[in-house]
Formats: sequence, structure tokens, C-alpha cells
Amino acid sequence: MSGEPSSFLAACRGQPARYTPVWFMRQAGRYLPEYRAIRAKASLLEICRRPDLATEVTLQPIERLGVDAAILFADILLPFEPLGLGLSFAQGEGPVIARPVRSAADVARLPEVDPADALGYVLEAVRAIRKALADRVPLIGFAGAPFTLASYAIEGGGTRDFVTTKTFMYREPQAWHALLDRLATVVGRYLAAQAAAGAQAVQLFDSWVGCLAPEDYRRYVLPHSMKALQLAAASGVPVIHFGTGTATLLEAMAEAGGDVIGVDWRIPLDVAWARVPGCGIQGNLDPAALLGPSDDLDARVRDILRRAGGRAGHIFNLGHGVLQPTDPGRLRAVVDLIHEASARRD
Amino acid sequence: MSGEPSSFLAACRGQPARYTPVWFMRQAGRYLPEYRAIRAKASLLEICRRPDLATEVTLQPIERLGVDAAILFADILLPFEPLGLGLSFAQGEGPVIARPVRSAADVARLPEVDPADALGYVLEAVRAIRKALADRVPLIGFAGAPFTLASYAIEGGGTRDFVTTKTFMYREPQAWHALLDRLATVVGRYLAAQAAAGAQAVQLFDSWVGCLAPEDYRRYVLPHSMKALQLAAASGVPVIHFGTGTATLLEAMAEAGGDVIGVDWRIPLDVAWARVPGCGIQGNLDPAALLGPSDDLDARVRDILRRAGGRAGHIFNLGHGVLQPTDPGRLRAVVDLIHEASARRD
Repeated sequence: MSGEPSSFLAACRGQPARYTPVWFMRQAGRYLPEYRAIRAKASLLEICRRPDLATEVTLQPIERLGVDAAILFADILLPFEPLGLGLSFAQGEGPVIARPVRSAADVARLPEVDPADALGYVLEAVRAIRKALADRVPLIGFAGAPFTLASYAIEGGGTRDFVTTKTFMYREPQAWHALLDRLATVVGRYLAAQAAAGAQAVQLFDSWVGCLAPEDYRRYVLPHSMKALQLAAASGVPVIHFGTGTATLLEAMAEAGGDVIGVDWRIPLDVAWARVPGCGIQGNLDPAALLGPSDDLDARVRDILRRAGGRAGHIFNLGHGVLQPTDPGRLRAVVDLIHEASARRD
Repeated sequence: MSGEPSSFLAACRGQPARYTPVWFMRQAGRYLPEYRAIRAKASLLEICRRPDLATEVTLQPIERLGVDAAILFADILLPFEPLGLGLSFAQGEGPVIARPVRSAADVARLPEVDPADALGYVLEAVRAIRKALADRVPLIGFAGAPFTLASYAIEGGGTRDFVTTKTFMYREPQAWHALLDRLATVVGRYLAAQAAAGAQAVQLFDSWVGCLAPEDYRRYVLPHSMKALQLAAASGVPVIHFGTGTATLLEAMAEAGGDVIGVDWRIPLDVAWARVPGCGIQGNLDPAALLGPSDDLDARVRDILRRAGGRAGHIFNLGHGVLQPTDPGRLRAVVDLIHEASARRD
């Protein structure tokens, strides 16, 4: 791919590409035996903190899957360490936040964080990965969006109903806005720093924002996502704005920002795209479809391409991360099918 | 209310009512001290199995909250016992299914279940509750929808990503359809039996169906929900069809059936209603709003009423069940506000 223009970056800019570019959220992860081999020696946080390991893991899926972009190996919660919240991962479980944010006082005592300094190891990884990639494919940086980060910070970990988060949001609106503003600044600067270190595009993950009513999104989240996205966009690289369960939030998310809006499988791609005119669209195969029969999988991939209609600005992806039981060979077959079926013959 | 026509039943039929009727999903539950007092003596399943206790618990919120309907106290998973799947509730946790359905053979060995016999204790509770209510308010019966029940049966309990469910659905479509057909029959007959025993309306809970893409809903779920809803509707009582996260499924859910479609807070009520012409609408306050400040709560209630626009066929409810930290006094205030703000002055 070296020397040829990147189909991924073209699509990010809404420009025609040789074929529909494809990458997969969590394409570096537990479903890959070579990733599990590294994880046998190093924890998730150790991999994130060691640029050599982060580089190795980031590159693992590139050749194997034939994807059109690499995504930095990191965790959206890394900023919680310099923010003093404490971060660990329980064995086989999700993240555990040692000192969750539960009051205005907790928000007030959050330290100023300069991502270029506090998360310098991530930026070092970005530089190392760019070097190792040698322009074969572009590198995507990323960060968690203010809402999604706040939900982890407040709940102290994962949640299904976001009750503690919403209670804080409704009862302590001033502290809420202070928290989200702080997170937006950190995240926006973090994304800009990743771009400065060599990331050629960045994605803001608002994975859990779909738990909100549209009016709550506008009131409690939109201004902060907008701030983070503007700080990121100022770096000059294209920005992807992603969430799940966002069928009723898409217009507001596009208003917050993003060159490309990432959607999940709950909304047909063409319906979603019509709702965010002027943006590109990323998505939207249900990751569970990778666990089904291959003829059914092929039909789903072709249906998504049909809904995209060959328009410039479509980046193929899953609607959320690769699931652990996924066979890497199936992902490779999906990449090959997308490239084959979408190739421009002119 | 005795002697006067029920505003709830009028709304179910799309007829004008004296005021907008309101009830709350899980209005009998742990947020009520008098419920916790019973639970200190009896497990959830014991309450379900003892008509005297089920009656007591069903009636607890009626006077206290001033709601316009009672809902049978039961659990959507009760049919799993006669189906031989094993059902228990871990301390403070969700349900545990001892023998989950994981293969076509598991489906094939599900016994025939006659709900009138196997769940006779529920029907006895319905009769006892009707007697105890003495027509003060109507009684709603309910059951889990085929998809939501199948997800518990396959996962063996609750889940966040429904991977095991979807894998089974994609890989074993014949067994999947056999399972859902079996569940649809049981559930449809169970709802009809509840109506015959005295339930004056019934609700089908497809709580987790929002994890599906619209095309998957149509292919794997709709025919089975339709069967259950038709069996229920044949009893002559109105039927409410409820799910969460269903912003892209509403047309298909209405096609499956239901006099009233129940929606959550993720979609504005007027937007949802426009998508299901000919149906009533139930919803759609975020239960977390009950944990916020009262002026904010009032504004949300009034906004929902404004979106309903006084049209016949709106039943006020939450978008999902009452949350445990909820103050019963706040629910009472919501009921009073709804009745006051929506009263017909003619």
C-alpha cells in the first residue's frame, strides 16, 4: 500500500477511494492467539505502558487481516491514572476505578493533567508504531468521550443501567459540567497530542452514550463532546465520532462534531447516513455476525455495501469491538470480500 | 374509581379518558419498604407461588401511589420451571438458569407445557388479586416475549452483549425458530389464561430486543412475537407490546401486534407515536429522572404530556422498571401531576 494514497484517509475526507476501506474496532485483542501470547507475559496496562509491546500488538492484525488502518493499542481509561482515580483490571473482568467521582468535591480535587506529559508513554507508542508501520497503512489514535469516561469514573467500573451516573448528572449539574469540561479538555488535548505524535486520524469513543434521551444528550453531553472534538480537529487530522445505540442521537452527535460518524448495527447504514448529511459514515456489521455461518455473513457484508451505495465517505467497520470467540480467518474473509466487492473498476 | 370507567382501559382502546392514566413497571418492588418487609420473610419465587403474598404485594403500591392500574406480581421467567430449565435467583443478583438451552437437542427435549396447569398458581393469584382490588383499578397480566425469554434461556442468565444468544440464532436457525415457536405458544396461552382468570389487559415484555438489527428482528423474532400476541389478543383484552432500545424496531414491533406500544426514553414520545399509527403509546420517562431534582422531574413529566398532546391512547409509564433507590413519594407526586395536568375540563 506504500506509495499509494490511503483509501482510509480518502474516505475520512469524503473523497473517492480505490475501494471501501475497512478496519475493526478491537482488531488487536484476545481473539488473536499472538495477542494472547503477549498477554500471558504482560498485563493490559503493561502493554499500554511499554511502547515496544504496544507496537507489536498494534501491528499484529495488519498483515493477518489485510485491514486498511491500524489503531493504536491503548485503553480509553488510561487518563484516569494521572487524574488520580486509580485504574486496574480485575481478572477476566472489566475495569475497576479505585476512587470513583461521587461529589462536587471529588471533581474539584481532580488535578490538572497535561496528556503530553502524563500520557507520554502513549505518544511514544504512537511514534514507534508509525515507524514500524512504515506507511503501509495509516494509524488511528483514539480516546474515550467525556460522557463515557464520566460514566466509568462515577460508577467505579462498568454498569448496565447508568443509575449512579445519571443521578449525579441530574442532582449535581454544576459538578457534572465541571467534570465533563475537565474530561473534554484532557481528551481533546490527548487526541491532538496523538495527532502531533503521528496519528493520521483519531476516533472519539462515546460507547455508552446511547443510554441517554436525546434532550439529555444535548443538555449534558453535546457541549463537552464538541469541545473535545474541536481540540482534536484543530490538529488537522480527520476525526471519527463513534457511539452505540445512538439511533436517536445521530443529528446531535454530528452537531457535536466529527468528519465521520460511527454507528452500530441497530440502525441501517443508509438510514443513519441520511441523518448526518455532510459527514462520512463508519460501520456497521454486528460483531456477532462473525460467529454465524459464512454465507449469512457474506450477505450481511454485501447488504451494508449496498446501503452505502459506493458513495465516497464510507469506512467499513463493526458496530462495536471484535468479540473474543471470533475466528481471525473470518475477519480476513470479510476484508477480502469488501475489497473485492467495492473495488472501483475505472 | 369504582363505578367510573377506567381511564387505563379507555386509553388501551384508544378512547378518550378523564385524564392520562399512569402506572409504573415494577411498581411493586424493592423500593417500597412494605415490599422489603415481605421479602424479609419470603423469596421472590415464594411470593410468586403464594397467591396471598402475590396479592398483598400487587396491591401495595395502588393506594400509596394512586396509579390507574395494578400489575400482577410475578416474574417473566416463571415458565422456565415447567419447561425444565431450572430457575433461581442468586442473592442480590439476577436470575440463574440451571440448564440453559445450547443445542437443537436441548430445544427438542423441552416438554409440552400447559400454562393453565403448570402456572396455575399465577392464575390463582390473578383471581385473588381481582377479588382484592374490587374493581378499584384494572389488573394487568404479563409475560416475557419469546426473544427476551430465549435470551435468558440460552445465556443462562442476564447478559450485556447477547453473544451466546445471537450465535445460537445465527448458527442454529431451525432450532432457534423451534425454540421461539415453543416459547410463543407457551407465552401466548399463558397470557390468554391470565385474561381468562381476570386480567383486564396484558403486557408482553420484550425488554432486551433492542440488541438486534431491524432485519434480524424481522427474520428471527417478529413471527414469534406475532404468534404470542395473537394468542393473547384472542382473549379479547387489550395488549401492550413493550421493549427498550427499540428506536429502529417500532414499525416492526407494531406489525407483530399490540394495541399499545411501550417505548423507553431514548426516543421522544411524539416521534415514537408517529411511527406506530393506529396504536396507542405507553411511556416514557427515564426511571433515573425520579432520582433527580423535583423541578426537573416535573418538567420532564410535562414535556411527555405535551408530546402526547392530549391525544387518546397515551398511557403514562416509565421507560423501564422503577429503580430501587426511588422514593415512593416522588412516584406519588408524578401520578398527581399527571392527573392534574391532563384532566379533561369539559
